[in-house]
Amino acid sequence: MALKLYGSPMSTCTSRVLTCLHEKGLDFEFVPVDLFAGEHKQPPFLAKNPFGQIPALEDDDLTIFESRAITSYVAEKFKETGYDLIRHQNLKEAALVKVWTEVESQRFHPAIAPIVFQFFVAPLQGILPDQTVIDTSLEKLGKVLDIYEAKLTSTKYLAGDFYSLADLHHLPYTYYLMKTPAASVVNERPHVKAWWEDISSRPAFKKVAEGMNFGEK
Amino acid sequence: MALKLYGSPMSTCTSRVLTCLHEKGLDFEFVPVDLFAGEHKQPPFLAKNPFGQIPALEDDDLTIFESRAITSYVAEKFKETGYDLIRHQNLKEAALVKVWTEVESQRFHPAIAPIVFQFFVAPLQGILPDQTVIDTSLEKLGKVLDIYEAKLTSTKYLAGDFYSLADLHHLPYTYYLMKTPAASVVNERPHVKAWWEDISSRPAFKKVAEGMNFGEK
Ligand SMILES: N[C@@H](CCC(=O)N[C@@H](CS)C(=O)NCC(=O)O)C(=O)O
Ligand SMILES: N[C@@H](CCC(=O)N[C@@H](CS)C(=O)NCC(=O)O)C(=O)O
Repeated sequence: MALKLYGSPMSTCTSRVLTCLHEKGLDFEFVPVDLFAGEHKQPPFLAKNPFGQIPALEDDDLTIFESRAITSYVAEKFKETGYDLIRHQNLKEAALVKVWTEVESQRFHPAIAPIVFQFFVAPLQGILPDQTVIDTSLEKLGKVLDIYEAKLTSTKYLAGDFYSLADLHHLPYTYYLMKTPAASVVNERPHVKAWWEDISSRPAFKKVAEGMNFGEK
Repeated sequence: MALKLYGSPMSTCTSRVLTCLHEKGLDFEFVPVDLFAGEHKQPPFLAKNPFGQIPALEDDDLTIFESRAITSYVAEKFKETGYDLIRHQNLKEAALVKVWTEVESQRFHPAIAPIVFQFFVAPLQGILPDQTVIDTSLEKLGKVLDIYEAKLTSTKYLAGDFYSLADLHHLPYTYYLMKTPAASVVNERPHVKAWWEDISSRPAFKKVAEGMNFGEK
């Protein structure tokens, strides 16, 4: 098989790529990397990603890492297969997909990641969640979602009236957030809530979500 | 003229886009946005970028924001013009450009941005640079640059033996960093230093750097 994904199903960054592969309906081999055993910090994995983090993708003799680079590569290489995540036939729509993909990366992610870390990762490391970090990040996230709420009043999805990679990239972290009391930041914003319910109920993601159980391997 | 860039020449995010436009040899109109007067938080600019930050680009009736989305749009729309920043004729090289563009965004930027902020932006706001923030970020940046040092031992640029958007995205923040005592984090790593000297001496960036004077409009 040509495509080989290295990662862990519970990891947000791995799920981002898995969701993309399922949307494209691609065959691939999944190779579990044992984070608890530190497999990602050993030479064989470091040869795939020198930063020692999952996921990594092999496509024959090409090895790439960074979840958003992988999804973008897959969405482009297989643009004629499965669901078109990048609107490759419309330059303007494709540009707006790029814009809102960057918004996720530069604005949404830095706000949501510390919250998910505090609720899920800190306890695994025997640390109590830090409420100050949660509160500060939640305030930041609320401001980002205020802009989303306004945007989603005029278009059904972030980049326009079409589901795209920009929406997809939000799925893994929001999925974990929704299992915490911080879910109110989504639920209090009706258009954001409707958007979340829509994108998280797509079959490609539902399949991936089954494997997203923090704390279990 | 079709392309209109809204921003400020001293802003890192604006310079990122300016450098790209110059590499492509494109004609464009530059529209200064007066940050000191808060022009970016007023309705006319908020209609271009609801997050109220520069830069924004207009291409006829399309308006986009987020510096990295703009460069990627420009590099792709004008792929046959000027220098090819995305290796569009080679799927594998293009994938590696994506990977290292993400590395800049996810790893390099979060480490370097607080340092540049403390040295240049805090003083403008009448705040003394916070040495703890500088030290913590410098340690993070050093770790990222250790991986760059290793990578640049085997290839001349980040994505391979060709200058690309991945290198270009590093220019604005590193330019300001190099004016501070924290420049040692680059200078101590011979391959990173040589790479920096190479990419910062390209004519497209030298033109942009002339306008990069923090604290002056
Ligand atoms: N920006 C990277 C982040 C990768 C990342 O944070 N991976 C996590 C799992 S979601 C990991 O490997 N954690 C283990 C570690 O850092 O030791 C991406 O999007 O791929
Ligand atoms: N992720 C955005 C960041 C934009 C940004 O931080 N812009 C700064 C100038 S470099 C700005 O507008 N600052 C003024 C403010 O935030 O009020 C991008 O890359 O375009």
